[in-house]
Amino acid sequence: MASGWFYLSCLVLGSLGSMCILFAVYWMQYWRGGFAWDGSIYMFNWHPVLMVSGMVVLYGAASLVYRLPQSWVGPKLPWKLLHAALHLMAFILTVVGLVAVFQFHSHSNIAHLYSLHSWLGITTVVLFACQWFLGFAVFLLPWASLWLRSLLKPIHVFFGASILSLSVASVISGINEKLFFSLKNATKPYASLPSEAVFANCIGLLVVAFGLLVLYVLLASSWKRPEPGILTDRQPLLHDGE
Amino acid sequence: MASGWFYLSCLVLGSLGSMCILFAVYWMQYWRGGFAWDGSIYMFNWHPVLMVSGMVVLYGAASLVYRLPQSWVGPKLPWKLLHAALHLMAFILTVVGLVAVFQFHSHSNIAHLYSLHSWLGITTVVLFACQWFLGFAVFLLPWASLWLRSLLKPIHVFFGASILSLSVASVISGINEKLFFSLKNATKPYASLPSEAVFANCIGLLVVAFGLLVLYVLLASSWKRPEPGILTDRQPLLHDGE
Repeated sequence: MASGWFYLSCLVLGSLGSMCILFAVYWMQYWRGGFAWDGSIYMFNWHPVLMVSGMVVLYGAASLVYRLPQSWVGPKLPWKLLHAALHLMAFILTVVGLVAVFQFHSHSNIAHLYSLHSWLGITTVVLFACQWFLGFAVFLLPWASLWLRSLLKPIHVFFGASILSLSVASVISGINEKLFFSLKNATKPYASLPSEAVFANCIGLLVVAFGLLVLYVLLASSWKRPEPGILTDRQPLLHDGE
Repeated sequence: MASGWFYLSCLVLGSLGSMCILFAVYWMQYWRGGFAWDGSIYMFNWHPVLMVSGMVVLYGAASLVYRLPQSWVGPKLPWKLLHAALHLMAFILTVVGLVAVFQFHSHSNIAHLYSLHSWLGITTVVLFACQWFLGFAVFLLPWASLWLRSLLKPIHVFFGASILSLSVASVISGINEKLFFSLKNATKPYASLPSEAVFANCIGLLVVAFGLLVLYVLLASSWKRPEPGILTDRQPLLHDGE
């Protein structure tokens, strides 16, 4: 039963995450004129897509590597490498997403980093960078003692979950801000809830639902990798009735 | 040592929480013309103050009742009553904060509930109401079995933490939105970061810091009420070196 619920959660997470990304692409393509890489507003359109893909969906998936029952047996190193590599990919998407908005601002003479959305967003990305490098140095490189690792592990998990929460808060404030910028037309203002507004508000709620489900599987579920010694290699896992 | 760190965290939480509330009052009083209860924009000014006070600061304090070492010994019922009463006070402040914004909108012919900020905020308040009534019915009224309580407790704790995270995301998007509404003056737009913008952005970051520290003490620290049987009444607690 436990494994059934776990894989059902994965299915829901996969669906929610795909919807978040696809809906963000559709929003930018259908209502905001599509994509380019030329400093124009069409370059900005990469920003929401890449932040949702990198800082939320891929970050969330990368966080859950150790919840996969396959990761519970055998050597941990390959799973650590996967965890670090997926987070690195998430970080790269995030940085490209930042380049998109910074170049658009520079090209259009718009000030950088003035809104609370941008302050929170940049704080989140800096925390993500620190978390990745500290995680790499302590948990992947071989020098750190077991004592140091077990001291830092709960802090690493807590900050991992916190950074995801801050990403979701940044995305919410970003979608809200973008809709106020874009829907200024007197005949169809944001306040009249045109179809674009309803669609983008729903993306915000989907991002929240995805984030909460990741945090539930990460923090509150019982699908955690048992500590060493509890399971040995090749022991059957998650059979029915467990 | 453990109790020293705990009380230091409480001191930091008390300072951060007071600053969030006082700074929100100062923002509304000094830059936005103060308070009234007449449907005008001065009635709206109660909204940020009451949401920060109720949904974040008092909610956060109420969540941490069982982390107080004094709650670890003796009967649990008085602490349950305190937990429920503080959350009820937080909920009342929240509802008054909602009345302030709804009456302002009605009075000024502004549409209700169109922005993503409002969608997320109202979802958070509805979840808070469900959480309070379910908590009251299952954990305070005497009918529920121990089995049901221990089944629902981790879900109650998870949703408690989630609602705080959603409140923080709502506050961030709300401050961001309010600054875009208010700072439209061509000589001092939001993008030029006038002193009001810097001040209100800092309130946003203080709310984030407060929320994260509450979540740390709630979820990641070791300051949890031991399960029944581990401690008996009047046993000395948290002596040095523990």
